[in-house]
Amino acid sequence: MKTVTVGIIGAGRIGKVHAENIAKFVPEMEIKRVADPYMSPETEAFLRRLRIPCISNDPEDILNDPEIQAVIVCSPTDLHAEYVIRSARAGKDVFCEKPIDYRLERVHEAIDACKKAGVKLQVGFNRRFDHNHRAVYEAVRAGRIGDVNLVKISSRDPAPPTIDYVKVSGGIFYDMMIHDFDMARFLAGSEVTEVFAYGAVLVDPAIGQAGDVDTAVVTLKFANGAMGVIDNSRKAVYGYDQRVEVFGSKGTVMDGNDTPNNAVFYGEDGTVSGTCYKIMWDRYTGAFAAEQKAFADALIHDTPVQVTGEDGLYPILIAAAATKSMREGRPVKISEIE
Amino acid sequence: MKTVTVGIIGAGRIGKVHAENIAKFVPEMEIKRVADPYMSPETEAFLRRLRIPCISNDPEDILNDPEIQAVIVCSPTDLHAEYVIRSARAGKDVFCEKPIDYRLERVHEAIDACKKAGVKLQVGFNRRFDHNHRAVYEAVRAGRIGDVNLVKISSRDPAPPTIDYVKVSGGIFYDMMIHDFDMARFLAGSEVTEVFAYGAVLVDPAIGQAGDVDTAVVTLKFANGAMGVIDNSRKAVYGYDQRVEVFGSKGTVMDGNDTPNNAVFYGEDGTVSGTCYKIMWDRYTGAFAAEQKAFADALIHDTPVQVTGEDGLYPILIAAAATKSMREGRPVKISEIE
Amino acid sequence: MKTVTVGIIGAGRIGKVHAENIAKFVPEMEIKRVADPYMSPETEAFLRRLRIPCISNDPEDILNDPEIQAVIVCSPTDLHAEYVIRSARAGKDVFCEKPIDYRLERVHEAIDACKKAGVKLQVGFNRRFDHNHRAVYEAVRAGRIGDVNLVKISSRDPAPPTIDYVKVSGGIFYDMMIHDFDMARFLAGSEVTEVFAYGAVLVDPAIGQAGDVDTAVVTLKFANGAMGVIDNSRKAVYGYDQRVEVFGSKGTVMDGNDTPNNAVFYGEDGTVSGTCYKIMWDRYTGAFAAEQKAFADALIHDTPVQVTGEDGLYPILIAAAATKSMREGRPVKISEIE
Amino acid sequence: MKTVTVGIIGAGRIGKVHAENIAKFVPEMEIKRVADPYMSPETEAFLRRLRIPCISNDPEDILNDPEIQAVIVCSPTDLHAEYVIRSARAGKDVFCEKPIDYRLERVHEAIDACKKAGVKLQVGFNRRFDHNHRAVYEAVRAGRIGDVNLVKISSRDPAPPTIDYVKVSGGIFYDMMIHDFDMARFLAGSEVTEVFAYGAVLVDPAIGQAGDVDTAVVTLKFANGAMGVIDNSRKAVYGYDQRVEVFGSKGTVMDGNDTPNNAVFYGEDGTVSGTCYKIMWDRYTGAFAAEQKAFADALIHDTPVQVTGEDGLYPILIAAAATKSMREGRPVKISEIE
Repeated sequence: MKTVTVGIIGAGRIGKVHAENIAKFVPEMEIKRVADPYMSPETEAFLRRLRIPCISNDPEDILNDPEIQAVIVCSPTDLHAEYVIRSARAGKDVFCEKPIDYRLERVHEAIDACKKAGVKLQVGFNRRFDHNHRAVYEAVRAGRIGDVNLVKISSRDPAPPTIDYVKVSGGIFYDMMIHDFDMARFLAGSEVTEVFAYGAVLVDPAIGQAGDVDTAVVTLKFANGAMGVIDNSRKAVYGYDQRVEVFGSKGTVMDGNDTPNNAVFYGEDGTVSGTCYKIMWDRYTGAFAAEQKAFADALIHDTPVQVTGEDGLYPILIAAAATKSMREGRPVKISEIE
Repeated sequence: MKTVTVGIIGAGRIGKVHAENIAKFVPEMEIKRVADPYMSPETEAFLRRLRIPCISNDPEDILNDPEIQAVIVCSPTDLHAEYVIRSARAGKDVFCEKPIDYRLERVHEAIDACKKAGVKLQVGFNRRFDHNHRAVYEAVRAGRIGDVNLVKISSRDPAPPTIDYVKVSGGIFYDMMIHDFDMARFLAGSEVTEVFAYGAVLVDPAIGQAGDVDTAVVTLKFANGAMGVIDNSRKAVYGYDQRVEVFGSKGTVMDGNDTPNNAVFYGEDGTVSGTCYKIMWDRYTGAFAAEQKAFADALIHDTPVQVTGEDGLYPILIAAAATKSMREGRPVKISEIE
Repeated sequence: MKTVTVGIIGAGRIGKVHAENIAKFVPEMEIKRVADPYMSPETEAFLRRLRIPCISNDPEDILNDPEIQAVIVCSPTDLHAEYVIRSARAGKDVFCEKPIDYRLERVHEAIDACKKAGVKLQVGFNRRFDHNHRAVYEAVRAGRIGDVNLVKISSRDPAPPTIDYVKVSGGIFYDMMIHDFDMARFLAGSEVTEVFAYGAVLVDPAIGQAGDVDTAVVTLKFANGAMGVIDNSRKAVYGYDQRVEVFGSKGTVMDGNDTPNNAVFYGEDGTVSGTCYKIMWDRYTGAFAAEQKAFADALIHDTPVQVTGEDGLYPILIAAAATKSMREGRPVKISEIE
Repeated sequence: MKTVTVGIIGAGRIGKVHAENIAKFVPEMEIKRVADPYMSPETEAFLRRLRIPCISNDPEDILNDPEIQAVIVCSPTDLHAEYVIRSARAGKDVFCEKPIDYRLERVHEAIDACKKAGVKLQVGFNRRFDHNHRAVYEAVRAGRIGDVNLVKISSRDPAPPTIDYVKVSGGIFYDMMIHDFDMARFLAGSEVTEVFAYGAVLVDPAIGQAGDVDTAVVTLKFANGAMGVIDNSRKAVYGYDQRVEVFGSKGTVMDGNDTPNNAVFYGEDGTVSGTCYKIMWDRYTGAFAAEQKAFADALIHDTPVQVTGEDGLYPILIAAAATKSMREGRPVKISEIE
């Protein structure tokens, strides 16, 4: 089997998830190095158990290692673009966690750097690789529903993030709905041209005081004439709820949530089955592995990546337009943003 | 619209159900008379509201009325055969509630009387007309599952009948599983040749003291080589539970229970939906109307009835074999019975 | 049983549906008269079979009949208000098909006439009485989902109406989504204060040429802070698709579509089950009967009707706001309308 | 983390599955050695990629290695007992693939050897660890359904094994239904005391010519009075179909099949969703890992194993009784077997 040698910059939660998934499920990838300036002994031990040979505090070790063909950027968000650019300049293909950056010019710089260096850039929109969403996508692409008329997405988290996080996250459109903006484009097969956003503080007043909303409904217009609607809530007590539907001229296709098991109990008071997963990593276990497998495939077979730099850019434009729409109380064209 | 004029003998529960269903849903039938020796004023008022013109205490009124083309026999079970025979002799087509009789010779006499008189005889196995079971049946008949290999039937009542009823009912195989024996033949499209029965008293010891079991599992062999299995329980706390499955060389087809509504609640502790119906009449509302409609169709178009006298006979043979099997602890061939 | 005597003005499709449902399922109501200036012989025969004693061409017969306590107005839409007003003046309670009128001043006149006369007025939003939507409503009202955060409604017809109808219907918001505006208020338990509408012509260009859209997504703000979203399409090839979801602080509750049966086939190429109903009357059979039963209950027990004149008014305001929003490309407050 | 060092005897299909699952999902276990007299270069490479240090042709290497605490026996079935016994004598705990042996005396010898040596013995009934079946089991054990009245199991393979395999497998009761016999005991929480078996050749006449049946229905009596029924087919064209239901005095609990995804398509001709898995390893991926994790837990915490030697013995007794029942056409008590 042909393999690619990779390094991972950043060993926080998502860095460890990628490391573990690659080690277990992506035999096409060899992780040679993981580097994180704040590497803890526990993290180092965890990575050792995955048999990763070189663990250090210095990302330069990765950038300078000629054996490493690709870099997986899992740094804090504000360093994503920098490591993408430096990896590209070092001639390495890049997988970058989403978002590339919240500042559009930085996103462009990162994308341009990769283009200029002729390296591949894949962005970490993992949900595209979820088995259920992917099946919906494939049904749409296979023409089963005919022309796309409407894309509907529900996306609700089990609990809000900390207020500290809310303050710096850029807001619900940037840190949460951004996944759905990507999903909407992915499923519609067309670009969003205009958005209208309603937001409200219904979960926790502190979120409002921090300048954000916790519940939002955004309607979308696509270039191909289709429409979309996304609803987000920071708190669904029943768990991580993510469902999509694509309705078209020949039918509709939708998915549901996975549950830990499908046992059903029929009792005197009703029929009871399990809840959704309450932890994101359980919900998208397979998706994280699948996106790395897809990245490995693109590298090994020199084919286009499935989530491009532009795919990383557009959701940020949509998030900017949604934010502007909510603030100004009017629909906003994507073309107003840049 | 061509219509047939009918009379109903017996205005107990099932008689009233048929009267109401025909009045509401079977415009092809006109009920001219209902007769019951024990007609109560409430029942009479109920029948009057259905605009039934002639209500009396004397079944002879029906048998002697030359305008009445068909008789619907809803008398107590031990008079079924008698009224079938007398109706036949009066030249009237007959719909007879199940069972025709528990005594095989009486069943034969009833069937023979109808044959000799050249009148139609339909037996009241209403479940054949249930929309879900019927859809399974039609899928099987359409060849979707290929050759039938296995028929599985679950049939559970919400609560046991009274002990007084248990004492005279002939036992679980005659009064409850008989519906399933009919369903098994209906779905398999083949005759049962042998049965093996296990029974147990798990619901109420009083049922055992009355000489019956309250839980039973019966396996069947069909003439075409297929097998079947039926389970019955006198008490399913979650309601009236009746499901069938037919498995074959090209797939399997199964149905489930109807529920009063399909709303689903997702809460912190799980996902909750409605229970099965807890009242038999709610469960099979449409089936009772549909069997009368089918009877009307057979009369108007002079086509064969969908549930024949033989269809009334065979389940009784199977019930007899199952009873014998359980008592003797061995498989019993249907050919041993007659 | 206490009963009320009613008359039905208009014997078109919906008039006949109400007549049949009342005759079969609402024993508390006696239909004494049905009047329609264009009564056909077939309709008259149909009504005779329902045992309705007085059938005529003149609605005056109903208005002048002192035995008739309530009038069910099933005339063409542009005469609804007139018959409501005249019925009220005649001292009769009124059930009026939706919409009362598309002209707001006429709606007010009708409501005022009923108030002044001290008669009850129920409006025909039948979907409130659908068993599935009702179960969702009851779960919400029972507090199972806590505070309402979001109401989601999908409503899609199997096929568009004729272009002639589209030209005079007032548009998708008035003739189709109006049901969903009512449902949204019903489920949210709060008034809509603002709407934003996107519409598109994706089904048939002729609909666009007639000045309407065939696909629409409308987002709503409610007075209680909750949000809503409704999607409509004139054409869902798989049938009549109507689903609602109400998401709140303690969970979410949703319903699905009924199907003619619940049989499921598992074959080599997948698992196949039935489609939605393709005919509206099949979809809402029970709902039409239930709304008349509720009307009868309100009359007999002198309790408030479940769908008031105001309930008839508000959806028209929302439809007006949605129309304005789509045309002007901005959110529109309901307070802008009147 | 405390870990146990294990060796695996046999590197055929199941040996490799265990090796891979342990390497990926059971950090509590270290596989030091894998030995197989017929180790292929491909298998060796596969095991090397899992970082297993010692790979050889000689099981003695494992038995003689004092660092190895437990042996996982994945040899051909007729050597299972031998390796269990020798491992026990070497003082090592043992995980033995099912069945321990088809010869009862050998099973007893194996169990006795482990008891005498004071080592643990876990048998590889992996389905007990399937997430769905386990949830059913836990609901039963938690008392949710009250007293167990009935256990129902369907178990169907996508395609029959080769005729060569059929000839030596001992028959459908030994090689296929044995899993269900274990599941029945597991779910009922009681011993089987009597069985009655019907079998038929409905899939392939060659299976009959080889002396076996390909379709079977077995009814069971349990010591606690409950009953059970199992159906098996060698060929379900729609995939690997395994469902269980346990019905009791307070309700019923059942599970269904996992599918590769839960996307549902609604089209003009019906509603279509995915099929069951068609490959056994996909169906029970998690179960194989979970049984090794449970074994590791029992070793590390010195707690009883979840599937004992007796659990390995009883299904063989039931299989023997079922075989005898089918041949002799009568119910057979388990007590007749030994």
